[in-house]
Amino acid sequence: MELLDKLKWRYAAKAMNGKKVPQEKIDNIIEAARLAPTSSGLQPFEIYVITNQEVKEKIRPVAWNQSVITDCSHLLVFAAWDTYTADRINYMFDLTNDIRGFKNEGWESYRQMLLGSYPQKDAEENFNHAAKQAYIAFSEAITAAAFENVDTTPLEGFDPAAVDEILGLREKGLRSAVLLPIGYRDDTNDWLVNLPKVRKSTEDLVTVID
Amino acid sequence: MELLDKLKWRYAAKAMNGKKVPQEKIDNIIEAARLAPTSSGLQPFEIYVITNQEVKEKIRPVAWNQSVITDCSHLLVFAAWDTYTADRINYMFDLTNDIRGFKNEGWESYRQMLLGSYPQKDAEENFNHAAKQAYIAFSEAITAAAFENVDTTPLEGFDPAAVDEILGLREKGLRSAVLLPIGYRDDTNDWLVNLPKVRKSTEDLVTVID
Repeated sequence: MELLDKLKWRYAAKAMNGKKVPQEKIDNIIEAARLAPTSSGLQPFEIYVITNQEVKEKIRPVAWNQSVITDCSHLLVFAAWDTYTADRINYMFDLTNDIRGFKNEGWESYRQMLLGSYPQKDAEENFNHAAKQAYIAFSEAITAAAFENVDTTPLEGFDPAAVDEILGLREKGLRSAVLLPIGYRDDTNDWLVNLPKVRKSTEDLVTVID
Repeated sequence: MELLDKLKWRYAAKAMNGKKVPQEKIDNIIEAARLAPTSSGLQPFEIYVITNQEVKEKIRPVAWNQSVITDCSHLLVFAAWDTYTADRINYMFDLTNDIRGFKNEGWESYRQMLLGSYPQKDAEENFNHAAKQAYIAFSEAITAAAFENVDTTPLEGFDPAAVDEILGLREKGLRSAVLLPIGYRDDTNDWLVNLPKVRKSTEDLVTVID
């Protein structure tokens, strides 16, 4: 399967060479993230796409000074909703009705169930749930980049509060969940580039109940 | 890009027809999940693959009685580590050294950093972090299934404590994070099968900082 070949090819680039990734490839990567499934279809996140070098340079010191932050072509910030609100839930249900061109009773009662549940929950719990949905899209973006022969560095090593501050996320009801520098590997300076991929064996990963 | 076609083709099947998915396809789906990137390469989850009908029938009532639980071919349960322990961290670092055939000073000091951090954190915080990594693999499994022209139902609507109990996960230091029924759509009984896919517009999803 081509997907498996792409997943074997990709790795977390530890050094990038600053080369620009063509816009068409970036568009495809974003489109894969946009198409990712999410819980109740709410897509509870936004994606910041940063090419501005000054902004990247502000983020680098709050991301363990990792060089890929400034040497990538595009830095993606997956910013999850800080909580679920009635407005946010209604927006997606209304959009669904608009696109499908009708109201469905079952779908409307599902809306009411979510409205009676999420907004009353603890914001931290809701953010954690929203962040997980962002990770599904994050995974699709990593995969799409591999299909475009573009490197990525899945990156959790950063201070979320500092990134939120730099991008002004909190006032928009968002919190940074995970970063994805996109660019091209720097073969000569990346210590990881030639090392074999390490994964648990299937036996250690899987339990079959048949 | 073929990936985008597959992501457009897939949807969350709401009814399945009970037909068996060939083992080779299941193996490829699992392999995609196994190859998924995770934070520090720790792969902090296991996957339970359930074909046993009695076990599926026990899970269905604690999963809102959703028919796909029993009418799928294979039910995947992504079970995340309940916390990070020194043993679990050391296992993956030792495996890495074994596979690569050498010890690297930087890698060893990174091990010490993780040992000095994760095991001291709150178990719930660690579980949430582990669950996010499971979602990356979950996303790859959904994608791989689409490449195999196999349907899936990404499924969060279940009682995790009850599923943990049925599968005996807690005593293994695991907690169910998310379910993935795999099988074939039942065209005649699935209300969602012919409805258009709904996603936010790219404009609503993306903010460009250039």
